[in-house]
Amino acid sequence: MQFQLTTDFLNTIEQLISVQDGSALRELLHDYHFADIAEILEELDSDEATYLIKLLESEITSEALMEVDDDVREKILDRLSPQEIADELQEMDTDDAADVVAELDDERQQEVIGQLEDETLAADIVELLKYDEDTAGALMAKELVRVKETWTVAGCVREMRRQAKNVTRVHSIYVTNKQGQLTGRLSLKDLLTASEGAHISDIFIPKVDYVTVHTDNEEVARIMQKYDLEAIPVVDENGILVGRITIDDIVDFIKEEADKDYQMAAGISQDVEADDSVWQLTRARLPWLVLGLFGGLGSVYIMQGFEEALEKFPILFFFTPLIAAMAGNVGVQSSAIIVQGLANDNVKGSLFNRLLKEVGLALINGTALGLLVILFGFIVGQEQLVSVTIAVSMLSVIIVAALVGTFVPIILDKRGIDPAIATGPFITTSNDIFGIFLFFYISKIVLGF
Amino acid sequence: MQFQLTTDFLNTIEQLISVQDGSALRELLHDYHFADIAEILEELDSDEATYLIKLLESEITSEALMEVDDDVREKILDRLSPQEIADELQEMDTDDAADVVAELDDERQQEVIGQLEDETLAADIVELLKYDEDTAGALMAKELVRVKETWTVAGCVREMRRQAKNVTRVHSIYVTNKQGQLTGRLSLKDLLTASEGAHISDIFIPKVDYVTVHTDNEEVARIMQKYDLEAIPVVDENGILVGRITIDDIVDFIKEEADKDYQMAAGISQDVEADDSVWQLTRARLPWLVLGLFGGLGSVYIMQGFEEALEKFPILFFFTPLIAAMAGNVGVQSSAIIVQGLANDNVKGSLFNRLLKEVGLALINGTALGLLVILFGFIVGQEQLVSVTIAVSMLSVIIVAALVGTFVPIILDKRGIDPAIATGPFITTSNDIFGIFLFFYISKIVLGF
Repeated sequence: MQFQLTTDFLNTIEQLISVQDGSALRELLHDYHFADIAEILEELDSDEATYLIKLLESEITSEALMEVDDDVREKILDRLSPQEIADELQEMDTDDAADVVAELDDERQQEVIGQLEDETLAADIVELLKYDEDTAGALMAKELVRVKETWTVAGCVREMRRQAKNVTRVHSIYVTNKQGQLTGRLSLKDLLTASEGAHISDIFIPKVDYVTVHTDNEEVARIMQKYDLEAIPVVDENGILVGRITIDDIVDFIKEEADKDYQMAAGISQDVEADDSVWQLTRARLPWLVLGLFGGLGSVYIMQGFEEALEKFPILFFFTPLIAAMAGNVGVQSSAIIVQGLANDNVKGSLFNRLLKEVGLALINGTALGLLVILFGFIVGQEQLVSVTIAVSMLSVIIVAALVGTFVPIILDKRGIDPAIATGPFITTSNDIFGIFLFFYISKIVLGF
Repeated sequence: MQFQLTTDFLNTIEQLISVQDGSALRELLHDYHFADIAEILEELDSDEATYLIKLLESEITSEALMEVDDDVREKILDRLSPQEIADELQEMDTDDAADVVAELDDERQQEVIGQLEDETLAADIVELLKYDEDTAGALMAKELVRVKETWTVAGCVREMRRQAKNVTRVHSIYVTNKQGQLTGRLSLKDLLTASEGAHISDIFIPKVDYVTVHTDNEEVARIMQKYDLEAIPVVDENGILVGRITIDDIVDFIKEEADKDYQMAAGISQDVEADDSVWQLTRARLPWLVLGLFGGLGSVYIMQGFEEALEKFPILFFFTPLIAAMAGNVGVQSSAIIVQGLANDNVKGSLFNRLLKEVGLALINGTALGLLVILFGFIVGQEQLVSVTIAVSMLSVIIVAALVGTFVPIILDKRGIDPAIATGPFITTSNDIFGIFLFFYISKIVLGF
């Protein structure tokens, strides 16, 4: 069952494309899943991919187009006429169709929408385009099965058969009143087990989780995950049922968010992959390295200020990478826990308690590490006062690093900025500078150079 | 609709628990979703939580028990008798029930299973327990709706009504032959739109994605995500349909894996949360800091070996935090991209091409950063040879760091070790040491001290 794209298979496809043998290609790819076709498209160059998109049935290619990377899709869309794009849209769910249209520039958007034969689809797309990008309105699809409270089970099944033709998967059946306001849901199970004459109002579940078109994507994901929902209905300001969001979109969203946070913590901006071009990877990575470089130059400047220690206590300079590493590691640990806690909504309690806890943690860790430093000094026969000074100043650096790592993300979050930017290079760089300054400053006071 | 647990509400609950006012509590919590009850349980102490579990209906508490953190559940289970645990299990899906039993020690497992009235459930649990933890067998539930190819639509609906009573949510209907081997699936939509007299063999879809009981969890997640599945059937070695995995379990799995990788990259072992105890957090964080400390002490040792440079080129020592930061940042970036690529299965192509690409990337980034270092040296009036030496050795450090960051995860992955451990502190620490050594070694050759 498992599809594995081999080089041989890919060569065969490229060969057939180069000789424009459409019928052989259709034959060859006939039985493949759209997700497999998408994998093939990603390996072809843009002209080859476009050839396949035009060749194969829209039913498959429309889904495959939604699976490929944004940049691959962009290049293919560039090569399709408005009419060809409209043909693909015709086969898509409304949410996917709206996503594709949103990727086009304004002029092309108008042209493509103008080419759509299905006027309901055109209207749905126009409606979906008007919602903010990160809200339930932009994430939802218009396809859903809705029944009215007043119907009978038999009438409901009849009507559902009609509606179900437009809905790829029936998740839940939503119940509305006469005005179209969401009033509850009906489980397929209850419908299957109810007698034909019963009324929907007798068997429907009046309690239903829902979101509004303005609900934030993250909140939608949190609710669907918490309550194990496979679909959630979306209502407008007046409670009118206008769409639904399905779990597959949320799975993609959760995965993307996690990948983004992970990359941010590693000092990679933009969504890049191992297979992206050197240029794309450089653009994503270099800015963070430059930040780190400036931080490092800052440390050079700080240490030049303590140059007088070079003669009597050169050992301090040997310890700077250790101090920087500790400040960086502790800061990253603290910030990662907080960023994850904020994302999962489990950072509770007062700021003061959190401060106490972080200081406590830093004291325990810092003391343990400080004792190891003193032990090391003892073993290599280092002057005891120097060892103790290094241990104590390292302890202070750890406490400050933990506080910075904890509170910078919290403050950013309170100000509506994504706290994930305060992980990785940002936190390590600032902690390097603070840490090295603090280390030398405390050493200077204690050792008096 | 949104549930927000307030301190007032929590106080009321604790108050009612302390006076053992069961009826008031039942009244108060009557309408809450199990996920909300779970949130309440997490805020109570173990005795209070156990009181609630015993008090409320098993239908709710069994689900709530599955939602709480592992450590909270463990403490509650410790306080329940085998009979009380069995009562909870009776209300759970088989996969959840097996997970709970798996958390008990061997003796308790036998006691609890012995108390189960439902012998099918007991047998299902025993079966599920025998599969390896990270496989589809351990993840699947036994509940599913299965129909035989030979049935009619009407007979099928009748039989489904019977089966559906045991299945919380009907996802797909699986079709088997007489021997019980999976042969296809039936969409609810097709069933709704088919005529009553039709045979299943006429309307079922003979193509169905499936996994075997031995398929790895990660592979299950990858397949379900790639093909947008909401449930996937599981077969045994003989192709017999034995269970199914639903998307909500996969959503949890994806989230947990992402959280784990993220924490690993930040130098946090074990699954901890912002609200865990200082002791738990210390156990998760301190080992990585100790690793970093040993790395730092290694750097001290290396720099002592280059002590003779102190007199003529003290500036080199001021640059060590910068070198360490660059080595660390580049290493983390490279490893993060590779680890993510390995997880998403998009690290393709030959190792040699990847090597070329990494070296190319490192050359571009390193050259840009090196020029900045030379510019900085020019501005502060640093000796030009020293500036160039620092820039060149930094470039070498960046290349080595990129190669280490790329190939260590790949090698670990090939040996079947989770590559995520090669991110974060592990890679920064080893790159610090390599980097500092390389930096001084090259400087020594060029500047000749």
